[in-house]
Amino acid sequence: MYKILGQIEKPNDIKNIAPEDYRRLASEIRACLVNSVSRTGGHLASNLGVVELTMALHLCLDFPEDKLVWDVGHQSYVHKILTGRWGKMDTIRQHGGLSGFPQINESETDAFDTGHASTSVSAALGFAHAARLQGRKNRVFAVIGDGSMTGGMFFEAINNAATLKSNMVIILNDNNMSISKNVGGMSKYLTKLRTASQYTTLKDNIEYALKKMPYIGENVIDKIRRSKSSLKHLVIPGMFFEDMGLTYIGPVDGHNVTQLVKTFENAVNLDKPVIIHVKTKKGRGYRLAEENPCFFHGVEPFDIRSGELRKKRVEGSLSYTEVFGRKLCEMAAENERIVAVCAAMPQGTGLIPFAEQYKRRFFDVGIAEEHAVTFAAGLAADNMIPVVAIYSTFLQRAYDQIIHDVCKTRRHVVFAVDRSGITGSDGETHQGIYDVSFLSGIPGMTIMSPKNNIEFEDMLEFAVNEYDGPAAVRYPRGGACMELTEYRQNIEYGKAEIIYGSTEEKRQVLLLAAGSMTDTAVKTADNLAGENISATVVNMRFIKPLDTKLLEKLIPNHDIIVTLEENVISGGISEQVASYMQWNGFYGKRCLPVCLPDAYVEHGNPDVLKEKYGLTCEAVTERILKGGVLETRGNKYNQE
Amino acid sequence: MYKILGQIEKPNDIKNIAPEDYRRLASEIRACLVNSVSRTGGHLASNLGVVELTMALHLCLDFPEDKLVWDVGHQSYVHKILTGRWGKMDTIRQHGGLSGFPQINESETDAFDTGHASTSVSAALGFAHAARLQGRKNRVFAVIGDGSMTGGMFFEAINNAATLKSNMVIILNDNNMSISKNVGGMSKYLTKLRTASQYTTLKDNIEYALKKMPYIGENVIDKIRRSKSSLKHLVIPGMFFEDMGLTYIGPVDGHNVTQLVKTFENAVNLDKPVIIHVKTKKGRGYRLAEENPCFFHGVEPFDIRSGELRKKRVEGSLSYTEVFGRKLCEMAAENERIVAVCAAMPQGTGLIPFAEQYKRRFFDVGIAEEHAVTFAAGLAADNMIPVVAIYSTFLQRAYDQIIHDVCKTRRHVVFAVDRSGITGSDGETHQGIYDVSFLSGIPGMTIMSPKNNIEFEDMLEFAVNEYDGPAAVRYPRGGACMELTEYRQNIEYGKAEIIYGSTEEKRQVLLLAAGSMTDTAVKTADNLAGENISATVVNMRFIKPLDTKLLEKLIPNHDIIVTLEENVISGGISEQVASYMQWNGFYGKRCLPVCLPDAYVEHGNPDVLKEKYGLTCEAVTERILKGGVLETRGNKYNQE
Repeated sequence: MYKILGQIEKPNDIKNIAPEDYRRLASEIRACLVNSVSRTGGHLASNLGVVELTMALHLCLDFPEDKLVWDVGHQSYVHKILTGRWGKMDTIRQHGGLSGFPQINESETDAFDTGHASTSVSAALGFAHAARLQGRKNRVFAVIGDGSMTGGMFFEAINNAATLKSNMVIILNDNNMSISKNVGGMSKYLTKLRTASQYTTLKDNIEYALKKMPYIGENVIDKIRRSKSSLKHLVIPGMFFEDMGLTYIGPVDGHNVTQLVKTFENAVNLDKPVIIHVKTKKGRGYRLAEENPCFFHGVEPFDIRSGELRKKRVEGSLSYTEVFGRKLCEMAAENERIVAVCAAMPQGTGLIPFAEQYKRRFFDVGIAEEHAVTFAAGLAADNMIPVVAIYSTFLQRAYDQIIHDVCKTRRHVVFAVDRSGITGSDGETHQGIYDVSFLSGIPGMTIMSPKNNIEFEDMLEFAVNEYDGPAAVRYPRGGACMELTEYRQNIEYGKAEIIYGSTEEKRQVLLLAAGSMTDTAVKTADNLAGENISATVVNMRFIKPLDTKLLEKLIPNHDIIVTLEENVISGGISEQVASYMQWNGFYGKRCLPVCLPDAYVEHGNPDVLKEKYGLTCEAVTERILKGGVLETRGNKYNQE
Repeated sequence: MYKILGQIEKPNDIKNIAPEDYRRLASEIRACLVNSVSRTGGHLASNLGVVELTMALHLCLDFPEDKLVWDVGHQSYVHKILTGRWGKMDTIRQHGGLSGFPQINESETDAFDTGHASTSVSAALGFAHAARLQGRKNRVFAVIGDGSMTGGMFFEAINNAATLKSNMVIILNDNNMSISKNVGGMSKYLTKLRTASQYTTLKDNIEYALKKMPYIGENVIDKIRRSKSSLKHLVIPGMFFEDMGLTYIGPVDGHNVTQLVKTFENAVNLDKPVIIHVKTKKGRGYRLAEENPCFFHGVEPFDIRSGELRKKRVEGSLSYTEVFGRKLCEMAAENERIVAVCAAMPQGTGLIPFAEQYKRRFFDVGIAEEHAVTFAAGLAADNMIPVVAIYSTFLQRAYDQIIHDVCKTRRHVVFAVDRSGITGSDGETHQGIYDVSFLSGIPGMTIMSPKNNIEFEDMLEFAVNEYDGPAAVRYPRGGACMELTEYRQNIEYGKAEIIYGSTEEKRQVLLLAAGSMTDTAVKTADNLAGENISATVVNMRFIKPLDTKLLEKLIPNHDIIVTLEENVISGGISEQVASYMQWNGFYGKRCLPVCLPDAYVEHGNPDVLKEKYGLTCEAVTERILKGGVLETRGNKYNQE
């Protein structure tokens, strides 16, 4: 099927392809991408955009000696294809299959694992210095999108790169877009750069004008030279990067393989850090993705012809993300103090309706989680109620800002922590399984997690309109649980909710569930009932503070205490409840921590992963019946 | 004593001072600064440098309506003085006295609490938008040093500021220095800006040259206009900021009050975000500090005349920081793979000797902790062994990078976590009391903490030369413990060390100590012996993984289990040991968590703070004798 691509069995094989076949190769790569992603789901538009760019890189670089770092990494499919992994593309993002991101464990040619934005230049700079110190001359390239350039790490890295005396090439892959539309000063600046041809003319004109003037002109040119700047620097708009000590080249057409190769080769001959500005088109070569790159950024399996998702949406179903977006609009209508902040994810966080209805009160700050949180703290310090919507895994970036700028002064900032728990196919870099741990350790923080869509709305209402202090609501990716709607007590600060049982009644098993695990706990209790084992089910609601007043009453009435959460064991509620019991003399109870082990959780369907890690009601039931205590503890203790 | 300053009793009073008295006022402020800091210790040089700048700000702004955010905040002493707090300056940084940083709890005029670098523009942008949304016209100023401008948050914030349609003023306080000498592209760029007068001439020349040419010249000017840039943008080097959408004004003399006031007033009239580049001299007006601004950045009490520290150094004493610097040099001599990375703190982290001896292998990346960690991961990915020296409190900034770039791929990066535990007079923003919690939750991380200087060296040796994976060694600020040197078993992965007692012997109390608390545990055991109570003392050495094999043997032989650590309770070893015991059926033992509560720890002398929070051997002894269990739990549960 793939006549040219079929000849590429391993890294560097592209160098044996005749230049006249490049166009055909590009087509075959695009066919491979569309075919596989239409079946598996994944990142499509960004990969379609970098086909020629990646081909040119593979024509220039020798793997694995040369190092290529993909920022974020979801655009590394073409790289995977060109390193001989194309035959496995239909396993991408599936459990046990190829990762959707570069992974050194998968191939030596994936020099550096990525997943979060703006890390590539830092890593590349590490590679460049390592090569220099070891007296090697291998090439180091980083590919970073214009969206990732708003992340502060990028700036920290280019600031530091100026001190590098040897070569390193940063490819700015500019498609005028991150996941959604780009924002901010840098974005506007890049727009100017993109139309740089007029500046080139301008520069020629000035030079011409100056040279025509024997005395004054010469004098000026001389001054410019003495000022250690060059005329080029004065008139072309690469200034920003040149100011920072990088050599700017571009913009270059990102779909012209031959020109790209020539540019790359010129760049590596400059013995200093270089940034090459490459213009690409997201979705290129697949009409539907060109027309709607946002939809095809990260997409579920779809029909190639129509572009429609294969799995039809269940009627009446809602995602937590949608519930959030809708509820926030409702509250904003009543309360003018509410503003929304997101970090380059207006779509992903469900904030599009808010952005449309409350334009002035909506802030997309770019990929800049640190700034987002402190910016929100500033808003809160002057009477606004900012709701900051950031995925759990990206909120890790703002850990210090939550401690330092929000909680220390008890600012009323509400964190909508989307994609918490197991998120699935994006894998290790995207699981939201640390937030309970890192947020619990912050003094003054309040953490909630809802059992279903209605409770989620109630919690948002509570966090925004009733509570006055920092509060996080964590909720999982995907469809909202719409069951257990008959349980709807008022949200009271620090109070859990009993679903089955009561404080009076002695039962055998006490199931203490956080958020999404409440439903699992209820089903587990139903299973246990079938085995004639009685169970109390508590929806903890508040992860911090724990409702210890309720625990104090319930624990003595039970024999087995089970904590259920989608978080790593260290610092999660399992550890918190167990230590609470130990400190308070609740002895002789069997304790089962149902949680994630002290390990990275790989990619795969969430259901598959939950089964593997024992988070299903079947697994929990079995563990309770079997009496095992330590299985999920993973490698927390004495891991070697 | 202070004839002019004495007239300033409250905020805005400076407006009643006659302009001819400004010079005298500045002198009195400097005298007040030198007098108080010479007695209390604190930040001197940076405050001496901003006397006129702060005066000018106070002449322009109306407090508390206008908002002034001090980046980092250690240069806010003059602001404190001018808001009527000068009479309390001799209490600064003392327990119960003024904070060394802005605190809203101390004064409404301290609009935003700071402590860590690069947060000011984010917060100010929050204030600016809040004012806009509430229809207010109050002014918003942020003051940021050139050092803080290397932090990624600054970049994220100015990128976002470009979208602001109203006014906000960023004062770039440029003294060509952060705490140590500045590094990187931004620093070089600022050096160019500082000498900008030559560009002004250049611009005039070009304009003159162009205008002289009726046809070509006009044509060029026209093109420039049509390209929506201006000639100014083409020839003056404020380009970097202008590229990002800010209006650049400067450089301005930071010691001329009248000129500063005029510039500020012009700037607030522009209805957009403005950056004013102000040149100041660190240490200004106190000769010794001008000559040695680094020494007088943060200084212990000193003699005003000689500049010598009042408290003489104890002969033979060493700080952990010095031990680290020396040991790293020793190891580097033997192992060429070792490189050192720090974030703008070569002096503070003890890396000056290394930087001098191994210039090529030393990397100061600027105030850029995120980049520092990922850069190190890049180095480690290509065969180097980076040792990253960052204070505990600043390492919070790199939490995500440790998860994502170091531990996921088990990179051999060694973290030298200086200033862990209670650090003292810098207060809430600088205590290193979260690192055990946030590092313990990261899969694959190893955490050690030494009992004394020799063990510290052994741990560094182990982490760098024996172990192969991510490892952190946490150690406190100040003098190294040089006792217990007779205990020096080999460091073995995950193994604790018994100081008193054995695995065979039954005793009453088991003291499990982390790092600095080992000495306290030994003294506690000695105290208990005086009361005829027997105790086993274990130096845990490894905080992660816990030596549960040893715990398994020891716990059954004791009645009371005491965990001792300088970390907050949530996620610390106290919680880890207690939950381990609960999960493994070690019931009926009294457990005493000796740790910090779930609360921010204020500023003050570390000894005072340790007494207050029950971390002294007297306090621990008393708690064991008294039998109280829950006192230090603070507000972890049901905090309201």
